[in-house]
Amino acid sequence: MTHQRKRIEIVVEAVRAAEVTDLLDRLGATGWTQLPVLAGRGRQGVRRGGDLSGVLDNVVIICICGATVAERVIEAREELLGARPAIVNITDCQVLRAEHF
Amino acid sequence: MTHQRKRIEIVVEAVRAAEVTDLLDRLGATGWTQLPVLAGRGRQGVRRGGDLSGVLDNVVIICICGATVAERVIEAREELLGARPAIVNITDCQVLRAEHF
Amino acid sequence: MTHQRKRIEIVVEAVRAAEVTDLLDRLGATGWTQLPVLAGRGRQGVRRGGDLSGVLDNVVIICICGATVAERVIEAREELLGARPAIVNITDCQVLRAEHF
Repeated sequence: MTHQRKRIEIVVEAVRAAEVTDLLDRLGATGWTQLPVLAGRGRQGVRRGGDLSGVLDNVVIICICGATVAERVIEAREELLGARPAIVNITDCQVLRAEHF
Repeated sequence: MTHQRKRIEIVVEAVRAAEVTDLLDRLGATGWTQLPVLAGRGRQGVRRGGDLSGVLDNVVIICICGATVAERVIEAREELLGARPAIVNITDCQVLRAEHF
Repeated sequence: MTHQRKRIEIVVEAVRAAEVTDLLDRLGATGWTQLPVLAGRGRQGVRRGGDLSGVLDNVVIICICGATVAERVIEAREELLGARPAIVNITDCQVLRAEHF
């Protein structure tokens, strides 16, 4: 048996990741995971991480949450977009443990 | 033309990743991919990878499989949860090549 | 309010990643993100990145796009598969900003 949840995926500059995770925390998310990004292309052109300054580094933040928290994230879009994420996408997913998310 | 499959995503401590991939192998998964994790927040609080000991490092394991293997993973939940994953989520996906998964 | 898009995820050797991103660019994708891979198992057996030669390194390419671009990617399957990706999977997702993808 599994339980319906939402998977939010946000690509954002590493230096602004805490703005996003702080917002997720405040909106009631029970957790999140950050992955490193090697390179990307977006509206600002191609960027590659790993330079000495680190200013071009992006991260992916993954947050599994219930529909209520996901709805709050969508409603907080102005604040979320203030961190200038390259991508915010949300997919439906199933989780094994209802109590965790 | 595409084919319906399942995408299983598991976040687990790097030191326990082999428990998960061995289980996936045994349940008939044809492959999996491991990604590094920078940091995460969950029920045990915030953890950051990259310390010298490596004991806090997590990884993301992604496995694309058919419904039958995904069902087996759900049924093997006790064994899977024995590796103490932070997250197990399953989404529907489409793949290009039916013969690969 | 959110907008329906597609999330394409491609696992491919790092040395062939540009073949994939060039194809995505040509097919009209507005961006993509590359993540590092630690290890994987597929039809060629287990491979681990990070060796000195780098020849075994894989990357994950994530591309959020509209249904039209996703359809073009599926139609360009012969060219895409020429880069010998280990995985190509497509999921439905929602995005906050229609104008970005």
